[in-house]
Amino acid sequence: MRRTKFSLSEDETPTHWYNIAADLPGPPPAPPLNPRTGKPLTRDEMAHTMPEPLIEQETGTARTYEIPEPVRQLYAQWRPSPMYRAHRLEQALDTPARIYYKYEGVAPTGSHKPNTGIPQAYYNKRAGKTGLVTETGAGQWGSATALSASYFGMSAKIFMVKVSYRQKPYRRALMETYGAVCVPSPSPETAVGRAVLADDPDCPGSLGIATSEALEAFAQDPSLGYVLGSAANHVLLHQTVIGQEAIRQMELADDYPDVVIGCAGGGSNLAGLSFPFLGAMLRGGRAVRVIAVEPAACPTLTKGSIVYDYADTGRLGPLFRMHSLGHGFVPPAVHAGGLRAHGIGPLISRAVEEQLIEPVAVGQVGCLEAGVRFARTEGILPAPESTHAVRVAIDEALRCREEGTPRTILFGLSGHGHFDLAAYDAYFAGELADAAASDEMLARAAATIPEVAPV
Amino acid sequence: MRRTKFSLSEDETPTHWYNIAADLPGPPPAPPLNPRTGKPLTRDEMAHTMPEPLIEQETGTARTYEIPEPVRQLYAQWRPSPMYRAHRLEQALDTPARIYYKYEGVAPTGSHKPNTGIPQAYYNKRAGKTGLVTETGAGQWGSATALSASYFGMSAKIFMVKVSYRQKPYRRALMETYGAVCVPSPSPETAVGRAVLADDPDCPGSLGIATSEALEAFAQDPSLGYVLGSAANHVLLHQTVIGQEAIRQMELADDYPDVVIGCAGGGSNLAGLSFPFLGAMLRGGRAVRVIAVEPAACPTLTKGSIVYDYADTGRLGPLFRMHSLGHGFVPPAVHAGGLRAHGIGPLISRAVEEQLIEPVAVGQVGCLEAGVRFARTEGILPAPESTHAVRVAIDEALRCREEGTPRTILFGLSGHGHFDLAAYDAYFAGELADAAASDEMLARAAATIPEVAPV
Repeated sequence: MRRTKFSLSEDETPTHWYNIAADLPGPPPAPPLNPRTGKPLTRDEMAHTMPEPLIEQETGTARTYEIPEPVRQLYAQWRPSPMYRAHRLEQALDTPARIYYKYEGVAPTGSHKPNTGIPQAYYNKRAGKTGLVTETGAGQWGSATALSASYFGMSAKIFMVKVSYRQKPYRRALMETYGAVCVPSPSPETAVGRAVLADDPDCPGSLGIATSEALEAFAQDPSLGYVLGSAANHVLLHQTVIGQEAIRQMELADDYPDVVIGCAGGGSNLAGLSFPFLGAMLRGGRAVRVIAVEPAACPTLTKGSIVYDYADTGRLGPLFRMHSLGHGFVPPAVHAGGLRAHGIGPLISRAVEEQLIEPVAVGQVGCLEAGVRFARTEGILPAPESTHAVRVAIDEALRCREEGTPRTILFGLSGHGHFDLAAYDAYFAGELADAAASDEMLARAAATIPEVAPV
Repeated sequence: MRRTKFSLSEDETPTHWYNIAADLPGPPPAPPLNPRTGKPLTRDEMAHTMPEPLIEQETGTARTYEIPEPVRQLYAQWRPSPMYRAHRLEQALDTPARIYYKYEGVAPTGSHKPNTGIPQAYYNKRAGKTGLVTETGAGQWGSATALSASYFGMSAKIFMVKVSYRQKPYRRALMETYGAVCVPSPSPETAVGRAVLADDPDCPGSLGIATSEALEAFAQDPSLGYVLGSAANHVLLHQTVIGQEAIRQMELADDYPDVVIGCAGGGSNLAGLSFPFLGAMLRGGRAVRVIAVEPAACPTLTKGSIVYDYADTGRLGPLFRMHSLGHGFVPPAVHAGGLRAHGIGPLISRAVEEQLIEPVAVGQVGCLEAGVRFARTEGILPAPESTHAVRVAIDEALRCREEGTPRTILFGLSGHGHFDLAAYDAYFAGELADAAASDEMLARAAATIPEVAPV
């Protein structure tokens, strides 16, 4: 039988997370700044927002951190996730390329997000918290938080970007089924939300606004732990189970990727897949090209610059050194809600700076077209976010055909699209536009980047 | 690490389907009757509706049939499906029972249906058909047909029961994404549909009506193959990969079920899981209790009788000897659309007749309550159909607690509920009723059972 699926047994679930900070060339990652003092956050200050083990994972430079047994136990429900060879897609494209994809849609909520939701819930529970609060874009992270909270018997409150709350009512219902409370953001529940609504009652929301609301709610209730779905170093760290498994699965396939492709919003899915490959390369292993695919509607890596900026619109949280479009950026309402982030993980920015990751921005119509093509050949329906990786993987495979070069392509299929069929409906109805961010929008947003003395 | 998941490698995907007709005690299964002559259908007559290998699988008594290589290749994308031990549910129920579940939601369309969609598409393609036509209730079978057709480059036309078409727009969109055409039934496209609409323009539809429409469309176009999602012998046969895998997974768990539980509409999911266990028992293996769980809204096994009746309301197809409520039965619009069938697979009826399967009917409110409980402990959100099995598994586990008996329970989790969150929404809003079929409805439907001389 032709080999299509490369499976590992649950005993082969990684035992450690991998920290790329140990292997990155150049200066160490710059520390986040306290928004009140403008000085690097101390561990004591960080202790107000996260439990000790997460602070260590956020700031430490050890190469690996051990995965606690109860977390591995929960991972093992669907991990190791499958890696597939896309034989039928290759055939349809008539390409000499070998295309593989690592599929995270087998998680109970259908995306890679529980990989970090579970450890964050675990550490907060151990620190005595009885509930979790967070923000969510398309709802993948919110569902993962709701699931993770329910695993540990905790409450969960989720501020969901309003445009996604309306577009994806099933995501909201899923969170509620796990017992969470889901609030459309901007909301009248917080001072930040009230201020935004006073300015624009029809504001579709953004991840930055929802983050501020979650931070405000967190600050008001000491029983809650604040958890976050992307960008932070420890979040990217937790996702590295993906790439570590993929390295072993590539061994099973007796192959190795020339190109690794992932969609990028906050960067956790891309980092999860690519950092273990980059780490291997940095330690003397095979060279690999890594491509970060972002939506043209929110071109953080391709049009933003590396600055100190807030992750949240309300400027309640720390400043991070990262690619940012400005914390005032409100991206157009594209279907890939999970990629609508004005800033990206500092470790991704460092990797881009060191030319370890190439960013590219694509329009959503071509992504949905690629998603349909993928579904009709490989059977799995990709989430709109994941179609960004599919699009560029197909483009790379077509380039291989033109050049007659049989490169090996590995991309991250970060989630299934069973909650996102409104996007496919809109695509077939011809109602989808590419909705790129205009120069004027970008200039207005860039003006919100604070002036900070270099640290 | 505590063992939670029992996985087999793709090389362990079964090589043969198992035919319980070879092992059933009592008289051989009664043949279907030609609706025009009232006499048993000949193989020549069957050849009008299905390709030769499917006729053999429908009528033959060989114990096993080999699974063709291209079918196994496609199965291997998600098979063998995982079997889990429900440790967290057991703990929440404080039961001495050991609860296992076999999870079919990992298939690309989220349910067990592609197990038969793929071989039916394969055999029809080999017989020269270029398209498939079928009916669907909740859309699980329609999605599987759309997927299977796209795997083999065929067109697909799906008549979908109107109430589900409206309740589950994402199922419709999924079929369209795979390239299928989806028609709400009753429709003006067929004579059967037009007659029903003339009588009742607001008719919510039923599987019987949709079947008639699909059969009519099939009769008018020789390029189409008619495929069906449940009840028929060959469909039940294809699903036996589920139970065969579960037997091997139970060996890995070093355990064996005392009770096997499955939801039952047409019977294919129940048969798929239970027939291999029943076969082992009939050949001298360990005793196993099998429970068929049907909705109180459509109590085919618990309130129907074994008769010759049509599977389709329009009386275009053959008559089958099966439990039936009468082909005129239109069940209330419960959320478990996939269980709204007035008749059930003849092999299931034979097994009930031989007291190998115990039927039980349950209301949907208790099922959804069980689904929420399951999601909050095990993480996976069950489809409304699957919650019927969850409900009875929980009841059995609670009985074990009362009796202090540590029985082993295995149930079929036939699909995920990511398309069905409207049902959970309605449950939380308190808008769900149990909608049992009334005596009057049942009497009116029973009057539509034809009088047929015993064969």
